Amino acid sequence: MRVVTLAGGTGAAKLLRGLVTCVPQRDLTVIGNTGDDTEVWGLHISPDLDTVTYALAGMLDVERGWGLAGETFNCLAAMATHGAETWFNLGDRDLATHLTRTRALRDGQPLSTVTARLAAELGVAVRILPMSDDPVRTMIRTPGGRLTFQEYFVREKALVEVVGVDYDGAPSAGPAPGVVESIQTADVVIVCPSNPVTSIGPILAVPGIVDALRSTTAPVVGVSPIVGGAAVSGPAGALMRVRGLAVSPLGVAEACAPWLRRLLIDPRDRACASDLARVGVEADVADIVMTDRAQEAALARRVLEVALERRGT
Amino acid sequence: MRVVTLAGGTGAAKLLRGLVTCVPQRDLTVIGNTGDDTEVWGLHISPDLDTVTYALAGMLDVERGWGLAGETFNCLAAMATHGAETWFNLGDRDLATHLTRTRALRDGQPLSTVTARLAAELGVAVRILPMSDDPVRTMIRTPGGRLTFQEYFVREKALVEVVGVDYDGAPSAGPAPGVVESIQTADVVIVCPSNPVTSIGPILAVPGIVDALRSTTAPVVGVSPIVGGAAVSGPAGALMRVRGLAVSPLGVAEACAPWLRRLLIDPRDRACASDLARVGVEADVADIVMTDRAQEAALARRVLEVALERRGT
Repeated sequence: MRVVTLAGGTGAAKLLRGLVTCVPQRDLTVIGNTGDDTEVWGLHISPDLDTVTYALAGMLDVERGWGLAGETFNCLAAMATHGAETWFNLGDRDLATHLTRTRALRDGQPLSTVTARLAAELGVAVRILPMSDDPVRTMIRTPGGRLTFQEYFVREKALVEVVGVDYDGAPSAGPAPGVVESIQTADVVIVCPSNPVTSIGPILAVPGIVDALRSTTAPVVGVSPIVGGAAVSGPAGALMRVRGLAVSPLGVAEACAPWLRRLLIDPRDRACASDLARVGVEADVADIVMTDRAQEAALARRVLEVALERRGT
Repeated sequence: MRVVTLAGGTGAAKLLRGLVTCVPQRDLTVIGNTGDDTEVWGLHISPDLDTVTYALAGMLDVERGWGLAGETFNCLAAMATHGAETWFNLGDRDLATHLTRTRALRDGQPLSTVTARLAAELGVAVRILPMSDDPVRTMIRTPGGRLTFQEYFVREKALVEVVGVDYDGAPSAGPAPGVVESIQTADVVIVCPSNPVTSIGPILAVPGIVDALRSTTAPVVGVSPIVGGAAVSGPAGALMRVRGLAVSPLGVAEACAPWLRRLLIDPRDRACASDLARVGVEADVADIVMTDRAQEAALARRVLEVALERRGT
């Protein structure tokens, strides 16, 4: 059973850890958001791809939700001496990922090749694809000017007012090799519980990906990142509002209509089911908040069951 | 009193630490070897400039003679996972230096500007100049092909046969800003106890520097890196032999004749004095092996005394 997922960072990492308890790693494909990619200290950073890779390698710092467990920050401390920006926390071991990626990109390798290599070297057999080998940058418009996503989220702690979101570069970007094909030949497509605007949005902004989602015969099932009117983690609320989306499973469904068939929602959002039905998305109520590994596995199982139920009808 | 030094790595670092106990840091200029510079993991490394800078900042790992005291190597361990070469030991804090330098060079800044900035940020007021802003690379010819100095010295541990030494790029390189002027206006010029072939040799290979040494009115005084027929540290012996130089203070003097006036030699090499006189270099017998900070300071004092004696004649 070929399972394809659209993934951001933290929430996706949890569901993916659950999915590999149900599906052989080789049968799982991740289409990862690169709209958050940024340059720090001259190095190319792909935060969402790294979070997913580290999580699947069992190396993610579970407390923080980013970076490597048992990490040290000695280079960071020394960079401060040299006046470098240190609001983006790069750990010493994590640096090896960015050094390897940056060097390979400078040597002319596409991001998809480097991403596959990094995953393989960390023992991950899941196929991790960046949404695109071309640069797409999610820019947050604020009254004071445009910020990259990392500036907005990490440096400004998502506390500044947002007036809009752009996906720079998206119109001329192409899907990375394997992205469209994996969706077209999937048995199940899963939209991870990731920020609809800054994690899933950039993926959908790459021309060709929505067409593949609309035309695939695979059931497309999502997990709501919004529970009880707020994001489980991250700044989805403010960003959804500015894109005209309700901060509810309905907003999530609207961002993914008309190709999303079913959305798993929290029992607290049970009342949304009829709204979802109006936009053509079937609601499935489930325990979607993952606070431990058992819940990650249970939710993954439930997502696959929902997808296969659909398939059987 | 303006003191200018020609410097390699370890031996130079010790004498320089001694000199700053005698001379205000601002009056001391270091002309540093960059023939050892290399690229590791896509980063520009200047080993000799870093050793000197770290030593003057009081941050050098004294046991090892390179790198930072109290260093960690967590990034290095992670780089091994990604198949990177790890024979060149880059520490986590040390990486900050190389990241800062590489980024500045990529932004188009000359090496001399970056070197000054790195030193200032580590609290070093000594003026540290690379011999050149242009790339000069010391290449070691072996029966199996050419190696960079770091490949020869660090990776091969100087155990391979050497058939020649080249200074690639030297003929078309120019002295870095301030190099020629500092020699011309110096009150004393000191040749540190550094490898004559791979530390001092590359400096002298940059067109314009020997002319400045020949024409300066300052006394030029050296400290022999060879004691009792062998280098105090490093692979100077084999390299001197292949360049046709005796592995003795005489070989050191010959490499620096005719602009070197005096050379401090170890008591064990007392018998060389007459040989030195034949090539026009006056020998001064002194305790030149520096095994602690007190000896570094004592030797520095002695070097300055010898230089000023000369000046008074």
